[in-house]
Amino acid sequence: MQSKVTIYDIAEKLKISTATVSRALNNSSKLKQSTLELIQRTADEMGYQRNIFAKALKSGKSNTIGIIVPRIDINFFSSAIRGIQEELNPNGYQVVICQTYDKGTLEVETINSLINSQVDGILMSISNTKIDNSDTFKTLVKKGFPFVFFDRKKDIEGISSVTTNDFEAGYIATEHLIKQGCKRVAHLTNNHALDIFKDRFLGYKKALEDYGLEFDSEIVIKTPYKIDEGKKHTRDLLALKNPPDGIFAVHDYLAFGAIQEIKAQGKNVPDDICVMGFSNEPFAKFLELSITTVNQSPLKMGKFAAQALLEQINNPNNIKVEKHVVLTPELLVRKSTLRQ
Amino acid sequence: MQSKVTIYDIAEKLKISTATVSRALNNSSKLKQSTLELIQRTADEMGYQRNIFAKALKSGKSNTIGIIVPRIDINFFSSAIRGIQEELNPNGYQVVICQTYDKGTLEVETINSLINSQVDGILMSISNTKIDNSDTFKTLVKKGFPFVFFDRKKDIEGISSVTTNDFEAGYIATEHLIKQGCKRVAHLTNNHALDIFKDRFLGYKKALEDYGLEFDSEIVIKTPYKIDEGKKHTRDLLALKNPPDGIFAVHDYLAFGAIQEIKAQGKNVPDDICVMGFSNEPFAKFLELSITTVNQSPLKMGKFAAQALLEQINNPNNIKVEKHVVLTPELLVRKSTLRQ
Repeated sequence: MQSKVTIYDIAEKLKISTATVSRALNNSSKLKQSTLELIQRTADEMGYQRNIFAKALKSGKSNTIGIIVPRIDINFFSSAIRGIQEELNPNGYQVVICQTYDKGTLEVETINSLINSQVDGILMSISNTKIDNSDTFKTLVKKGFPFVFFDRKKDIEGISSVTTNDFEAGYIATEHLIKQGCKRVAHLTNNHALDIFKDRFLGYKKALEDYGLEFDSEIVIKTPYKIDEGKKHTRDLLALKNPPDGIFAVHDYLAFGAIQEIKAQGKNVPDDICVMGFSNEPFAKFLELSITTVNQSPLKMGKFAAQALLEQINNPNNIKVEKHVVLTPELLVRKSTLRQ
Repeated sequence: MQSKVTIYDIAEKLKISTATVSRALNNSSKLKQSTLELIQRTADEMGYQRNIFAKALKSGKSNTIGIIVPRIDINFFSSAIRGIQEELNPNGYQVVICQTYDKGTLEVETINSLINSQVDGILMSISNTKIDNSDTFKTLVKKGFPFVFFDRKKDIEGISSVTTNDFEAGYIATEHLIKQGCKRVAHLTNNHALDIFKDRFLGYKKALEDYGLEFDSEIVIKTPYKIDEGKKHTRDLLALKNPPDGIFAVHDYLAFGAIQEIKAQGKNVPDDICVMGFSNEPFAKFLELSITTVNQSPLKMGKFAAQALLEQINNPNNIKVEKHVVLTPELLVRKSTLRQ
């Protein structure tokens, strides 16, 4: 059913190096025309399937796209990547994925390394870091290298992005808690160097204001999104003289830690304290006490980001394209906030 | 703190193409010595950080390793990848990840594409497919290309592998159910073209035999590992004249589906039916009715696989190295099987 012939077989048959075969199949101008034709003809005769090279022959492209994310073991990112692949694979592009584990210093290295290995474009969600790699991003724009941010972005002139409306997400999450009767809503957030977390915070603050609730910076806590951090900070919040009756966490892991701590103290979720998560990790739905969360439609985000990148790559006249797609967040109400 | 100078800046300054700069920094023999030295000197003067190139200059390598997995949104694979990166990054290697989504036809394409982009080696977990790509793997051996299988492998002479002892895993899982009092244990398995599933099945069969229980092929079901499949097949099992009192599923998702169906029918887990999962997905621990499972130590597996690959890459005399590391599975007993 599928090709058994590899570039190695062609190299073997012609007694030349695989590098030369690869160059020929990529139509390199470094080769003599006669060599190039011999290799391409031999590949055809041997039944070598050049689906991914077919376009490269015409365009001189590698037909590979790089994706850079902080980490792949967050469902949001693996789903966005799936969306990207579903869009790019049928268009003849392969995808390679790189993780930075939120290390800012790895971002520039990873970009250089991908460019070095000749990817045709990069889709990137930046790290949660205080290191500012804006200069690198600006250089990419200057050189017209196809590049799109998704979810986590920097505002750089000339770079397209696909994001969630995080301000609105923070607003509807907080509003929902208020409508469930919460009078004092705490916020477990993250480093505000990232727009996504700052915007969710601003949405939270605006909702409090619109509904006439007091804003208290003492119950806004910046923390990595890990289950244990959720537990620890909830312990601190419950120990306050004036503890919250609602918690809006910027990630489901934090919300899950919060719920465990509240239960451990013999209190009830949602009756005593409502807990709201974010980003719709699959486990949040499976729990006996399922977690209310915000869905950011990562599959759709990935597809839109890939489309924006393809538009840049297929831009015949190098017309400047800057496009900002902002997706609407969706509130998924479950047991952790739903008072009877 | 970190470099702001990219290959673009160097290209700009020297009014040459980025491809030429990249070639020079990789010490390509295609360039005139004077050009090469000019570019390398300029890069140094501009403070270009060549940490990833430092070794490439000496060795002519790209210092990038490709990882191929069926999918990244299974915790087992993302953890194994983490193990690989923890081993490779400190050794100066970058990592690019590719997914095949279990499509056999994508395997050869992905390997070719990675080799084309000049990776120094590949770590691979094969797809669950009936397509046999053995010829491609054999060609890699013949060419001495650094290549290691982890978890899902083909038995190919010359290719090292790091796996779990899946026979033992199937055995201890089944034995545990028998020791909990189960007399009739069903098995939800997957396509036996993959060794891992065949071996777990053989371990299951051997345990039944050793404990004098009857083997019945009617209650061994091959299915994709999805929650809904777990529900559906459990419904069929419970409808049998002689339904099982224990289910051993080859994945936690299947076990979770089974538990939901059993509960929906008003039966109790584990008192009526014990349910056993596999692979220690994080959600299995978080559930109110936590799922007993088998831990395959993916982090350790990734590290060992990376070490085996490095040994091949750093093999100065091209001595043939074939190494098979088999990790011991660990039973994690939780509520879904623990009868009081």
